[in-house]
Amino acid sequence: MIIIYSPIHTHHNPPHEFLDGRFIKFTEAPIRAETIYKALVESQIAPIIPPENFGLEPIHAVHPKEYVDFLRTIYYRWVKNGGTTEAALPGIIPTRTLTRYSPSPLAQIGYYSMDISAPVTSGTYLAAVDAAKCALTGASWLIQGKEKAAYALCRPPGHHAAKDVMGGFCYLNNAAIAAEYLTEGHTKRVAILDIDVHGGNGTQAIFYDRPDVLFISMHGSPEWEYPYFTGYADQRGEGEGEGFTINYPLEQGTDDARFLGVVDEALEHIKKFDPSYIVLSAGFDTFKDDPLGKFQITTPCYETIGAKVAALGLPVLAVQEGGYAVSELGDNVVSLLRGLMKS
Amino acid sequence: MIIIYSPIHTHHNPPHEFLDGRFIKFTEAPIRAETIYKALVESQIAPIIPPENFGLEPIHAVHPKEYVDFLRTIYYRWVKNGGTTEAALPGIIPTRTLTRYSPSPLAQIGYYSMDISAPVTSGTYLAAVDAAKCALTGASWLIQGKEKAAYALCRPPGHHAAKDVMGGFCYLNNAAIAAEYLTEGHTKRVAILDIDVHGGNGTQAIFYDRPDVLFISMHGSPEWEYPYFTGYADQRGEGEGEGFTINYPLEQGTDDARFLGVVDEALEHIKKFDPSYIVLSAGFDTFKDDPLGKFQITTPCYETIGAKVAALGLPVLAVQEGGYAVSELGDNVVSLLRGLMKS
Repeated sequence: MIIIYSPIHTHHNPPHEFLDGRFIKFTEAPIRAETIYKALVESQIAPIIPPENFGLEPIHAVHPKEYVDFLRTIYYRWVKNGGTTEAALPGIIPTRTLTRYSPSPLAQIGYYSMDISAPVTSGTYLAAVDAAKCALTGASWLIQGKEKAAYALCRPPGHHAAKDVMGGFCYLNNAAIAAEYLTEGHTKRVAILDIDVHGGNGTQAIFYDRPDVLFISMHGSPEWEYPYFTGYADQRGEGEGEGFTINYPLEQGTDDARFLGVVDEALEHIKKFDPSYIVLSAGFDTFKDDPLGKFQITTPCYETIGAKVAALGLPVLAVQEGGYAVSELGDNVVSLLRGLMKS
Repeated sequence: MIIIYSPIHTHHNPPHEFLDGRFIKFTEAPIRAETIYKALVESQIAPIIPPENFGLEPIHAVHPKEYVDFLRTIYYRWVKNGGTTEAALPGIIPTRTLTRYSPSPLAQIGYYSMDISAPVTSGTYLAAVDAAKCALTGASWLIQGKEKAAYALCRPPGHHAAKDVMGGFCYLNNAAIAAEYLTEGHTKRVAILDIDVHGGNGTQAIFYDRPDVLFISMHGSPEWEYPYFTGYADQRGEGEGEGFTINYPLEQGTDDARFLGVVDEALEHIKKFDPSYIVLSAGFDTFKDDPLGKFQITTPCYETIGAKVAALGLPVLAVQEGGYAVSELGDNVVSLLRGLMKS
């Protein structure tokens, strides 16, 4: 097991997000990753290394250059055009009848957003690229056979970000970037299992027409849970990718037994798919005391999940996604890693 | 000339809107319509009557029942589901990769929104339906030949609202509802001229495939002006409606001479179209001191516009849209009406 972490993420620290009609303190705060790091150090579970440099090429393999350029420059152009200095947040998002592009910075922030939960500050690009590097470093170690398992302590998270859409605290899709890298130039199959309580809409969209990347997401039903507008069971991929997206929308109150039953089912699909690598989009907002989630998962359950994944005997990259019960977040991550190390 | 007004609009008084990353006091405030009403009373320009009742049928002719039902109920369902009591505002708007529907009230507010500038309060539906009734009453007077010109003092405005999308202070598209009514069951042609500084994206979308309603919008270019993602010159309608939408994206600093030149061109198109009625989407945010607009139109120019429209000799319904320079708003409206009465 190798763990990848860098404190660069602390430069991404928006003061607030906009939710259900009001500003609230930014939930996806630096303390999240810091508390996980502290728990990992104390647990002495595995060595922790900084991310390596991969340039922008593996990021551009998932996100178009124009989107990455937007992410690098928008905060400065936004402020210059009258946007608030606190954080760039969309006011208008082109939906349905709005079909064209506008070069206005005040519009671009909405063009590339799906919600008001991905504020862009001066440090956002720095942190987002660094998080992608953490995931890529883990992927690289697996490809080189240096370790059988890796955990990338990514912040900001990534699974809500599509090719050119940010949202839900996510800017670059760390898991997707790593998965694309793990295909080793489209020569290997990769399975992504997303266990965050929120559907992995971004990852789904990125690989929706691809038969070489199996994407499985288990999450609160879009009937009542963010991101609402995707993640239904009948969304199963398209074109050559038909059948290679699997969604498990689950009930409020989903507990360990129910969740583990679905994990077993998902792993059966992965076994049949016979991938070279597994990427685990590891969200911990399924935890019973998470302020955002409505599931009832307990700390030991994450170890069981890890052990089940490890039992497949495949190289596994766990990528940090959500999880907002800060005081138990470190324990939950350590629990998962203990399971993953049982291989 | 007949003027239609009702104070019901005051029940729609959201505390704020969300713009360029911050909450600001709601710009589209009751004082706007109240100040216009006061100026009209003082000018003694024409009789003022309350709106008549038309039921929901002529509204449903433009807006699907599910959308109108949403507008009536959403505030209460939103609050019940944890949304703030101040006003319902979207947090997530389904764009690009988000393609499905969610029954969650916290999601529905975003499903039916294009921006964060159409807050829904307990009085919004009441006011929106009343504004539509004002426009319909004017249309009805024209159809009955009781007057040659009518002015509906609508608030909230309407031209940004599409069939099932609200935004930009607009919920029901008063001008579109009146225009549809003026087709008298698709037997008459109607021309809509939109002179608001913001492109009339909603009206455009509603009639985009229709050859019986000519829609002409003259506005700040979407390259720098709201609503950004539509209103380019090459957007000219589609299918049978091809050629029956005309957009004039104009420059920052557009002055009387430039604006009147485009009005002349627009009226030439209307003459050739040979409609039975004209609907004038009358925004006054083109005014030189308007806090939102970047045009330089002066008060006397509105009278000239009115006179030019009146010179076509057709029944005209002017519908109030934007205009936020409150201290001159009344004078500007009176100026337009003086022109319209020159027929």
